[in-house]
Amino acid sequence: MTPTIAVADVLQRARDITEPHLAQALDRLPDSIRRAASYHVGWTEADGRPRNQRGGKFVRAALAVLSAEAAWAEPDVGVPGAVAVELVHNFSLLHDDLMDGDLERRHRPTVWALWGPSLALLAGDALSTLATQVLLDSDNPAAPAAASALSKATAEMIAGQADDLAFEQERSVSVEECMAMSAAKTGALLGCAASIGAVLAGAPPATVQALEGFGRHLGVAFQAVDDLLGIWGDPATTGKPAGNDLRQRKKSMPIVAALAAGDDESRELDALLFGDPHKDGTPDALTAGAPAADVVKGNGHARASSKAKTTSQITRPQLARPDWAPVSPRPLSTEEVARATSLVECCGGREWTAARAKAHLDAALGSLERARLSALPRRALADLAVYVVERES
Amino acid sequence: MTPTIAVADVLQRARDITEPHLAQALDRLPDSIRRAASYHVGWTEADGRPRNQRGGKFVRAALAVLSAEAAWAEPDVGVPGAVAVELVHNFSLLHDDLMDGDLERRHRPTVWALWGPSLALLAGDALSTLATQVLLDSDNPAAPAAASALSKATAEMIAGQADDLAFEQERSVSVEECMAMSAAKTGALLGCAASIGAVLAGAPPATVQALEGFGRHLGVAFQAVDDLLGIWGDPATTGKPAGNDLRQRKKSMPIVAALAAGDDESRELDALLFGDPHKDGTPDALTAGAPAADVVKGNGHARASSKAKTTSQITRPQLARPDWAPVSPRPLSTEEVARATSLVECCGGREWTAARAKAHLDAALGSLERARLSALPRRALADLAVYVVERES
Repeated sequence: MTPTIAVADVLQRARDITEPHLAQALDRLPDSIRRAASYHVGWTEADGRPRNQRGGKFVRAALAVLSAEAAWAEPDVGVPGAVAVELVHNFSLLHDDLMDGDLERRHRPTVWALWGPSLALLAGDALSTLATQVLLDSDNPAAPAAASALSKATAEMIAGQADDLAFEQERSVSVEECMAMSAAKTGALLGCAASIGAVLAGAPPATVQALEGFGRHLGVAFQAVDDLLGIWGDPATTGKPAGNDLRQRKKSMPIVAALAAGDDESRELDALLFGDPHKDGTPDALTAGAPAADVVKGNGHARASSKAKTTSQITRPQLARPDWAPVSPRPLSTEEVARATSLVECCGGREWTAARAKAHLDAALGSLERARLSALPRRALADLAVYVVERES
Repeated sequence: MTPTIAVADVLQRARDITEPHLAQALDRLPDSIRRAASYHVGWTEADGRPRNQRGGKFVRAALAVLSAEAAWAEPDVGVPGAVAVELVHNFSLLHDDLMDGDLERRHRPTVWALWGPSLALLAGDALSTLATQVLLDSDNPAAPAAASALSKATAEMIAGQADDLAFEQERSVSVEECMAMSAAKTGALLGCAASIGAVLAGAPPATVQALEGFGRHLGVAFQAVDDLLGIWGDPATTGKPAGNDLRQRKKSMPIVAALAAGDDESRELDALLFGDPHKDGTPDALTAGAPAADVVKGNGHARASSKAKTTSQITRPQLARPDWAPVSPRPLSTEEVARATSLVECCGGREWTAARAKAHLDAALGSLERARLSALPRRALADLAVYVVERES
């Protein structure tokens, strides 16, 4: 039996190896963006002072480093991949927070909330570009292949986000569509993280594919857990408001699964979430939003600032509302969230999603088991996968 | 003497060669994003119907194709570079329109105005990623070098945009800072466009550098002309409102140059533009924005829609306003814009900027002249440069 390696140690080591290189990469950014990025990853306070607490978990960096070792290379070989996937991950968080209007992440104000939408947008753009630079600047002969894999995964992630956005306008989303969206949105980048080290190590295609499959399944399991935490997570632990996903009527796995149950409770849930005067989705409405009003202007100056005394710079569009633009629903009230939460559970949405998490974790571990890999890193990857799926934040 | 090639023909040929490959690249995008991108580049209407009019000028594609030919390669060699630079250019336009709150581009509603900020943000992200994919998927052995050059130029462009954003919060910006920002924001990508074909053709470093220098200078000249059009351009031709840059108090070249004159008119201009109760920039304020209020939410549903009857989903931040966040100025009135326009001219801002455009065009042509290049493409590049600087839209 392969000895267990403590997951905390694996994550800490990945952080120790990756952070200096990530910091070096961020040093290439202009001051304003570097400050926001350094704040975002948890290294500094908003005013630039160093911060004593740790930032993100570096799960993706750990996967990248371990995937190099699984292919019998030194951990350093995986580092450009680790830095690049962390950069892409953080780019997606910066833009997601902006799109979702989330004010807090990990119990701290988000970058857009502090510095305005424009800086958050540019910071995301900069991190995405930097990820490609980090890989292509490396002298590893497999670096172009790694950059190619990363840009493919990034494209898939963005496509998943576009699907997620389109779901908001659709009257009903099937369980299959929802799972495909999660595989793209979360699975693609985790698949890349779990194989990019092996790509950089020059591993044979079968090894790379097995590791990628492991990461993809892990990503779907990860998203299932995320969706469970989005309804039943403890706000103190997740750093997000309780019942957030239901209030925002997100078509997350438990909700979509509950709606698919087809019984009385499921119909009540459907009426509660989408029974408002709410135009049905039409083929055209798939991608349509209302003409947005309050645009990301400048660096978000003074729009409804706490003083709210400056003349607003908001540009109000004078465009005619396209007739295919759907009317948006209002957020659910706290009482409605409570009722919807129990309906989702009652319709089996919670149980179904937990089973999906378990099934995809098993599939991930199976893919790992079938690959020809070095024993210790394989064990560490498996332990890390279990940890990720059992997490509570 | 090398015969003149009509610039219109050069642009038309670049369009003819590049468009099918660009269309093929866009086919890899999810439906919602492809529809927005196809609309944005001018191929389709908002509802997806084909459009008879032409879209953008394909100047960057023409530079890329010509730079391959200048290095004695076939035009096709430059095509992946042409597609990639056009993708990066369009990514930057999508995000710029969002940041600037511009409702129209080329006399048509912008993507964010039609489909909401979130889709415009994702579409920009997708085009940026697709640019890397297009290059790395090509079987040209120089493709990784081309992808590396493009990501470096993209990073510089984003840094220039971050500087531009930071300028909004600074009390005064020097002429040197303004020129450096333009070189980064516009020069970097044009420098890449004008050399990426040569990179793909395997040209020697000296040739690539000379072409890049040509493109960089051309980019600064281009930006100078853009800044002149931003004040004195004919709205019917530019597709932007008259006096747009002054109304928004942009620190563009003519304005910064006029402010640097140091005479009475220059002080009047300064008071008019920045004499409001307007907190001075401090080192901390460099990158600070007010806590933005109306965030890019969902796909911008129904916020102040023309019906304005749905409950708003706007998330209003409850964050304390950081004390280093500057108060934003109000936009100038039409009368103030008229006065400011004549003050900028009177202080020599117009003349100075026109001279900068001329000087950088000359430097661009000089760089081209000194390089070892094939004669006809060299002449076409020179003619294209003159055309770009003499344009009126």
